[in-house]
Amino acid sequence: MSQPPQHIQIAEIVVDPAQLDGYKAAVAEQIEAAIRLEPGVLVLYSVSNRDNPSQITVFEIYRDREAYLAHLMTPHFLKYKATVETMVKSLKLIPVDAVVLGSQAK
Amino acid sequence: MSQPPQHIQIAEIVVDPAQLDGYKAAVAEQIEAAIRLEPGVLVLYSVSNRDNPSQITVFEIYRDREAYLAHLMTPHFLKYKATVETMVKSLKLIPVDAVVLGSQAK
Repeated sequence: MSQPPQHIQIAEIVVDPAQLDGYKAAVAEQIEAAIRLEPGVLVLYSVSNRDNPSQITVFEIYRDREAYLAHLMTPHFLKYKATVETMVKSLKLIPVDAVVLGSQAK
Repeated sequence: MSQPPQHIQIAEIVVDPAQLDGYKAAVAEQIEAAIRLEPGVLVLYSVSNRDNPSQITVFEIYRDREAYLAHLMTPHFLKYKATVETMVKSLKLIPVDAVVLGSQAK
């Protein structure tokens, strides 16, 4: 039986500029909890566009689709979603496939 | 003196669909060489849009701006640029700032 593939996606999020600091605090708390508590959450890189900081991109790698679905049900993710509901103007999830994932981390 | 910040950017690349396999081989060779030979190249995650595979995104983290500029002058990067010149229809580089970079890699 072959190993299930990693689940990789890119989230493009537009935040209300007036609430950007609050959004950043909420996403930092969520990501730190996910990495600490969920071994199936491999990478959550949240960055803001330098020329338009309220445009946030999150590069997300999960061990597999099950790890992603489990993540969506965790208390820290549900708290994040509730906290940012009025901060996020739009959210686009882009499913992607790895071409090559190069990293110094072993 | 404070530590220089990581240089992080997102590359959005549109490839000629007829040359996608050749492009993927060239970028895989380039990324594997960069990770092996350049300790300042921390992350190069190349992915293709599942619904439109000729749209490539690369999430890039360098130790600092100097490591990024040095990368651009390496033989493997220059070979990649020459190889893909006729394969790439458009390239957009988006400079970004970290909000939080969460990863299981220590």
